Amino acid sequence: MDDLFAFILEIDKSKQITRQTYISDGSRKENDAEHAWHLAVMVYLLKDYANEPVDVSKAMMMALVHDLVEIDAGDTYAYDEKAHESKAERENAAANRLFAMTEKGKELELLWREFEALSSPEARFVKALDNIQPLMLNHATGGKAWKEHRVSLEQILKRNEVTPSGSRKLWDYAREHFIAPHVGKEISE
Amino acid sequence: MDDLFAFILEIDKSKQITRQTYISDGSRKENDAEHAWHLAVMVYLLKDYANEPVDVSKAMMMALVHDLVEIDAGDTYAYDEKAHESKAERENAAANRLFAMTEKGKELELLWREFEALSSPEARFVKALDNIQPLMLNHATGGKAWKEHRVSLEQILKRNEVTPSGSRKLWDYAREHFIAPHVGKEISE
Repeated sequence: MDDLFAFILEIDKSKQITRQTYISDGSRKENDAEHAWHLAVMVYLLKDYANEPVDVSKAMMMALVHDLVEIDAGDTYAYDEKAHESKAERENAAANRLFAMTEKGKELELLWREFEALSSPEARFVKALDNIQPLMLNHATGGKAWKEHRVSLEQILKRNEVTPSGSRKLWDYAREHFIAPHVGKEISE
Repeated sequence: MDDLFAFILEIDKSKQITRQTYISDGSRKENDAEHAWHLAVMVYLLKDYANEPVDVSKAMMMALVHDLVEIDAGDTYAYDEKAHESKAERENAAANRLFAMTEKGKELELLWREFEALSSPEARFVKALDNIQPLMLNHATGGKAWKEHRVSLEQILKRNEVTPSGSRKLWDYAREHFIAPHVGKEISE
């Protein structure tokens, strides 16, 4: 049991990995643990809108662990193209260390690799939610993070190319409700 | 879909409900969303140590939503006996408002009520984890929250009376590894 509790304590560090998205009242940026919690609840509530049937338990666990590698690799902002060049290498090294801490780590590593490869209905659905959740929060905060990083509509649409492959219905909703109101204001055209 | 997204945005407030437990480096107290994330991962990793077989998907979702009512009711510290007198009333009012926001809220309310009543193997297991996770973090931070609140061993044991009903093995582990080293030091005998 020691290895499991060592791992459970190690992943507590997710609470200190800061993302670029602000929480709903705009008071501070959210961290990886909170973000993963939000996605897992969304999996449960929005599962009927996935393009393909998803195994809810698997998708929830995938959501809970999809950012663990950032404990070592750090958060790579969606719109930071330079940082994306080294992302895979940094995250692979992190996976090798973290998931080796316990026997159960192998299962989590498989979930993470499947998520990264978008190679299952669950991976594509969780990825769609992973993209839509910050759109929702950016909308709720008046586009705060978009303004801060001078994000363009082109960048958002490029980032979201994969979103409809997880859920066309949720993507249509997000585009209309979370993106469109900000085009030409917080988001440059 | 509007009601679901309104609810998903509303529960973002969990990220602002502060608990009394410090995160593992002792730099700040953790919030409800992070705590729920941690419990859900623990459900998956520690399920084999539950006294009775548990439905993992159900137990994970229960962990994810077990503190939502604190958005209105606030966190009631485990060792604050005065606040516990009004806890049920405050949390019931919160449940009535929150879970009415969406049709799916009924399912979440059932999970929350089952958790509160400890009326299923999942509820007893999640409750055990809900008690053990702060023991682990208190141990990791040198008993920081225990010292701050002058918590006694008697209080901890009373609080944990229900813990063995979810997992005797995890309770035995926690008592030996997370509590015993602090008795007579951070925890008064």
